[in-house]
Amino acid sequence: MKKAGILGGGQLGRMLLQEAANYAVITHILEKDIDCPAAHLCHHFTQGDITTFEDVYNFGKNLDVITIEIENVNTEALEKLEKEGVTIIPKPSVLKVLQNKIQQKEFYKNNGITSSEFAITYNKKEIDQHKSLFPAVHKAALGGYDGRGVQILQDASDADKGFDNPAILEKLVDIKQEISIIVAVSTTGEIKIYPPVEMIFDPLLNLLSHQIFPAVLSNTILWKAEALALNLVKAFNSPGIFAIEFFIDKQDNVLVNETAPRVHNSGHQTIEASYSSQFDMLWRIMLNYPLGNTESIMPAAMVNIIGEEGFSGPAFYRGIEEVLSMDNVFVHLYGKKTTHPGRKMGHVTILSNEKQELIHKCNQIKRTIFAESK
Amino acid sequence: MKKAGILGGGQLGRMLLQEAANYAVITHILEKDIDCPAAHLCHHFTQGDITTFEDVYNFGKNLDVITIEIENVNTEALEKLEKEGVTIIPKPSVLKVLQNKIQQKEFYKNNGITSSEFAITYNKKEIDQHKSLFPAVHKAALGGYDGRGVQILQDASDADKGFDNPAILEKLVDIKQEISIIVAVSTTGEIKIYPPVEMIFDPLLNLLSHQIFPAVLSNTILWKAEALALNLVKAFNSPGIFAIEFFIDKQDNVLVNETAPRVHNSGHQTIEASYSSQFDMLWRIMLNYPLGNTESIMPAAMVNIIGEEGFSGPAFYRGIEEVLSMDNVFVHLYGKKTTHPGRKMGHVTILSNEKQELIHKCNQIKRTIFAESK
Repeated sequence: MKKAGILGGGQLGRMLLQEAANYAVITHILEKDIDCPAAHLCHHFTQGDITTFEDVYNFGKNLDVITIEIENVNTEALEKLEKEGVTIIPKPSVLKVLQNKIQQKEFYKNNGITSSEFAITYNKKEIDQHKSLFPAVHKAALGGYDGRGVQILQDASDADKGFDNPAILEKLVDIKQEISIIVAVSTTGEIKIYPPVEMIFDPLLNLLSHQIFPAVLSNTILWKAEALALNLVKAFNSPGIFAIEFFIDKQDNVLVNETAPRVHNSGHQTIEASYSSQFDMLWRIMLNYPLGNTESIMPAAMVNIIGEEGFSGPAFYRGIEEVLSMDNVFVHLYGKKTTHPGRKMGHVTILSNEKQELIHKCNQIKRTIFAESK
Repeated sequence: MKKAGILGGGQLGRMLLQEAANYAVITHILEKDIDCPAAHLCHHFTQGDITTFEDVYNFGKNLDVITIEIENVNTEALEKLEKEGVTIIPKPSVLKVLQNKIQQKEFYKNNGITSSEFAITYNKKEIDQHKSLFPAVHKAALGGYDGRGVQILQDASDADKGFDNPAILEKLVDIKQEISIIVAVSTTGEIKIYPPVEMIFDPLLNLLSHQIFPAVLSNTILWKAEALALNLVKAFNSPGIFAIEFFIDKQDNVLVNETAPRVHNSGHQTIEASYSSQFDMLWRIMLNYPLGNTESIMPAAMVNIIGEEGFSGPAFYRGIEEVLSMDNVFVHLYGKKTTHPGRKMGHVTILSNEKQELIHKCNQIKRTIFAESK
C-alpha cells in the first residue's frame, strides 16, 4: 500500500482522511497539535512543525506522496524530497509562488491571468506613491491567512494602517459577485473542473455568509472564469487540487483574486453535491487513479459554523439538534476541543433542487446553530 | 465530548468511524486484530477479545455508549455495563435473542412475526422426525456467520450433513425475491424506516450478486414487509439500527428470514443514496440526536468486492482504475492487508435514476474489478 502524508492536521486533513478510508492507503499526518481534528484518523501521527526543514524532511523521507492542507509549509524540505523521488502535490515550485502574495500577483501578470491592478510596496512610506490605486487593499506578502495580514486603505492618509514589510497594494474591486472554481489536475496532466460556487459575504461582518453551488452566472462570465482557471492551472504545471477565487466587478470583468493549491473551504459542498468530492479527487490524484466526475448530483449550499463572539473554551454546539432534524441537511463538526471567536468549528451542507429552499435553509441554519462554550 | 465504543473493528466499524468524524465524539474500538480496517480511525484502540467478559467489561466501563459491528460479543459484560449506566445499543437482551437462532425463531413466533416453518433439533437424530419440513435448511443455533453453520438438506436421507448441536430446521422457502429493510430506533423510541433494498443472488455461486435500492415491490408486499419490520423493532423494544431480511415466496408471502441489530451489508448504498446513511443514523442514535432522513437522494445499486477464488495474500485490486473511471460510481475499499477467497474486501455503489443503468453498471463492475493477490 502507498504511504501518503499530509502536512497539517486541521479540518481539511480530517475530511481528507474520512475519504482516504475508501481506498487502500497508509496515511501519515505531521502537525504540532496532538489534539488536532485529524490526529486520530491517520495510521501514523507525527508531532512536528510543518514550517521547519527538519520536521518536514524527516516526516517525508519514507513516504511515497505528500500533500498539504495549508500553504505555510517548509518548501525547501519539499524540494529536497521531490529531488529524492517523493511525489509532492502540489509541486513545491507552486507553493513558493503562492506563499508570497507579491510572487502570486507577478505570476498572474506574467501568465496573462487577469487580476486587480496592484503595486508592490516594501514599507509604509511607499504607499502614497500609488494614489491611482485608492481605495485599495494592502496585503502583507507573507503570513496572511483567514483575514490576517489584510488592511483596507481608503486613501493615502490611511497609509499608516498599512504594513511596513513587503506587501502588495491592490486597487479595491467594486465587487458584484465572488466565486470560486476548483480544478483537479492529475499527475498525468488530466484536468477536470468543478462548476463554480458563489460565495456570499455578510456586508456587516465581512464574513462568508453562505455558498451557493453551482453559482448562477451568465455564460460570458462562466466562460471567462473557466478559461482563466484552466490557463492558470496550466501555468502552474503541477498536479493537485486548485481553488481559484474570483471577483466579478460591476462591469462584469472577471479577476482572479487568490489561489489555494489545495482542498478549500469553497469546495466543502462537493462532499455531498458532487459525484467525486474535492477530497476524493485529491486521493485519486495522489494514488494515480483516474480523476473523478465533477458533475453535480444536486445543487447545494454551504454554511460555515464559526466560533461565536464572546465565547472561548470547550466547544458546545447550541442548536445542533434543530439543524439535525432538517430533512436535507448534512452537518460536519470538526471535533475541535475549544472554540474562540471566528474559529472554523464546522460546516453544514444543504442539498435541494430549489434555489429558494437553499437560501431559506442557509438563513435558518445561521439563526439556529452557534459554536459556543459552556 | 461523549465517549463511544464499538465492539469489533471490521469494515462496518471503519465506515462507522468515517461518519463519526462529522460529529464531536471520542471513539474507541475493541478488536483482536491491530491491523483491522477500523484500527487507525478511532481515538483509542484497545486490543482485546469481544467475546470475553473481562475484555468487554474493561473496555466499556469508562464509556458513555457502546455499539457492536458483529453480534458475537459477550452479552454478560454488556448487561453488567448497562446496569452500571452505560448505554448499550442495541440492548443486550436483543443481542441474546439474535445470537441464538433458536431463540430468534421463537421470538418471531411469540411476537406474531411471520417467518418460515421450523422445528428445533438438538442432534442429527432428531432431523428425520420433521419430514414435512423437507427440503429444508439446517442452521446451527450458535456461531453461524456469512454462510457458515448453514446446511441445505434435500430430504431426511441428508440428515447426516446436519448439525449435531442445537439447531433449527427450516422449511426451504420457494424464494421469488429477497429484500432487506433497515429500521432506525432512537433512545427515545422514535422510529424511521428506510425503503427496502432487493438482494439479487447469483444462482450458481449462491452469493450476493448485487443490490437494488429501493426494491421494486407491489404495494401489498411493501406494506406487509414494512408492517413486519415495525412490529419486530417494537417487540425488541431497543434503540439501534436493525437490518431485517425477508423472503418473498412465489405466493407473495412475506417471511422474516434473519435480523441483524446493527449496520449491515444490505445498507451500504445508503452512504451515497440516502440523506442520512445507516452509519450516520447510528451516530445520531448513540449521541441522542434526532433521527435523520431515510428518503433517497437517488436510486442506487451495490456490488460487493469479494476475495477471488485461488488468491490468498496481500490484497491487490485488479481493474480498480477502470471502475474509478465510471461516472456515477463510488468505490469503498476496506483496506484489509490480505485477501482470501470469499472475504469481503470492499464494495461499489452506483447512483442512477435509470434502473437499467444500475443493472448494466453492476454487471460491468462485476466483470471488471477483482480482489486478488500479487
